[in-house]
Amino acid sequence: MPNMKVAIGVDIGGTNTVFGLVDEQGNCLVQQSIKTKDFPDPEYFVAVLSAKLKELIASEKNLNVIGMGVGAPNGNYYTGTIDFAPNLNWKGVVPLVQLFEKHFSFPVVLTNDANAAAIGERIYGAAIGIDDFVMVTLGTGLGSGFVVNGNLVYGHDGFAGELGHTIVEKNGRVCGCGRKGCLETYASASGIVRTAKEFLVNSSESLLVDVEEISSKSIADAALKGDALALEIFDYTAEKLGFSLANTVALTSPKLIVLFGGLAQSGDLILKPTKKYMEAYLLNIYQNKVAIFPSKLKASDAAILGASALAWQNS
Amino acid sequence: MPNMKVAIGVDIGGTNTVFGLVDEQGNCLVQQSIKTKDFPDPEYFVAVLSAKLKELIASEKNLNVIGMGVGAPNGNYYTGTIDFAPNLNWKGVVPLVQLFEKHFSFPVVLTNDANAAAIGERIYGAAIGIDDFVMVTLGTGLGSGFVVNGNLVYGHDGFAGELGHTIVEKNGRVCGCGRKGCLETYASASGIVRTAKEFLVNSSESLLVDVEEISSKSIADAALKGDALALEIFDYTAEKLGFSLANTVALTSPKLIVLFGGLAQSGDLILKPTKKYMEAYLLNIYQNKVAIFPSKLKASDAAILGASALAWQNS
Repeated sequence: MPNMKVAIGVDIGGTNTVFGLVDEQGNCLVQQSIKTKDFPDPEYFVAVLSAKLKELIASEKNLNVIGMGVGAPNGNYYTGTIDFAPNLNWKGVVPLVQLFEKHFSFPVVLTNDANAAAIGERIYGAAIGIDDFVMVTLGTGLGSGFVVNGNLVYGHDGFAGELGHTIVEKNGRVCGCGRKGCLETYASASGIVRTAKEFLVNSSESLLVDVEEISSKSIADAALKGDALALEIFDYTAEKLGFSLANTVALTSPKLIVLFGGLAQSGDLILKPTKKYMEAYLLNIYQNKVAIFPSKLKASDAAILGASALAWQNS
Repeated sequence: MPNMKVAIGVDIGGTNTVFGLVDEQGNCLVQQSIKTKDFPDPEYFVAVLSAKLKELIASEKNLNVIGMGVGAPNGNYYTGTIDFAPNLNWKGVVPLVQLFEKHFSFPVVLTNDANAAAIGERIYGAAIGIDDFVMVTLGTGLGSGFVVNGNLVYGHDGFAGELGHTIVEKNGRVCGCGRKGCLETYASASGIVRTAKEFLVNSSESLLVDVEEISSKSIADAALKGDALALEIFDYTAEKLGFSLANTVALTSPKLIVLFGGLAQSGDLILKPTKKYMEAYLLNIYQNKVAIFPSKLKASDAAILGASALAWQNS
């Protein structure tokens, strides 16, 4: 039996790190996870993770590992380092690729999670065959990855694609980055919760009664039941996102925008009004040409698929 | 004597079309112009222009013409057509490249004027050796060209790079495109004149007394003499431009932004406050990393150089 080619995908999150083996068709053969927070020392983290990956590889027969892709917050493609990631315990600049190279001889590629998701979508998901698109991840924050002429846009320093930190409201909400009015303070799982809390102050009738229990999912559930306030919250969120996407389209003219992550899972509740507002704000030459699709990657595998796709793209 | 390689550069403007021959070092050997407005029929325009270009080529000995680049408003790189250009007399879709190919056997490449300027800057000007930069042309309107990974960003349809039509003020000034608050209604030669006229209503002391005579040059002249209102007008313009550039940097992370055109010729009057506001609005990871330079192309040759650079890039 010939060797089967596989790529390793690793997604490092603030809480968990998931990792697995992916074949060329985008099937996640096996996956596991460890708690990122348990490892204050990145060198020890890499040693433990590498040992687990070696076990995984050995557990399957006839595997030919072509490489490894890693997605991580503030992961820099050019330097192979994680730089000052606010949601990780590791301070300063972590030479992640260099650390992995002590354990493996195949190529290791690092980028941020949104860029990894973009490549995952292009190789296995909603953007197959599309050379110009934008990936938007609506998680706790808002991440983005830009693909232009078939290649990821890293920018001169590896830090391109921070749509979440474009300013959509001057003097708007305070952002974790220290500035005000960033898109991610409105259009993200945490942003929509902030909106709900603001709106509830002036509203008496809503299914969203318990302020402490509000989440993007509970808002979506209420909206699906026809709750007027919840629908208004989605509309407000979509207006900010649609506006920013219209300005984005005017710069790179993508054929497609893919939405991924918790908030995107509310489906048409977010997709339809976002599309409506984007079209309303678009310059005429772009109108009715840009699709907005939800991700086609299986949510449970998406992070690993995206990271592994990096390895396939570089192989 | 060996043949000297030259490229033809043609810049089609609303009023004039300038054209000339450019060598590999970016020297404009000869240039002429015709009045675009004299030619309501684009086919006749191309025939006359082609005859003049053949004369130019024949007038110099031993020339090897490697190709021709054309910059034009709404010029589409992919289709070789000028599509619905509001500032030209030609209506609808003009198959410009096809028309030229009836007269010449060398390759003909078309794009919009701002993209041509970007390539001109990269091959001969301020962006030599820089793979990620943004060209901003501050003329009557505001055009832009994005270079990413060393290549122009055309987008899926050839229409990428409309920074002038990103919305910087919701419900702001009415724009020629039919929407409101586009950046070019503030940051352009016509935009700064609008600002001056607005500001003069509430101001009694200024060198800018004659409202009808105001131009971006007269505002610059007054500012150079220390006129407080003129300086305030530049500051207001720079705030809009700096804000939009900060949002732009967050998407493509360029190493450099090149400013070109009438308003850019006011030098530090526009460069310094624009840089100041851009830095103030930038996410920390981008601060103090992005240069803003004026164009290094000789103003009188720039349009032809930019267009000819397209031909060199495709040769």
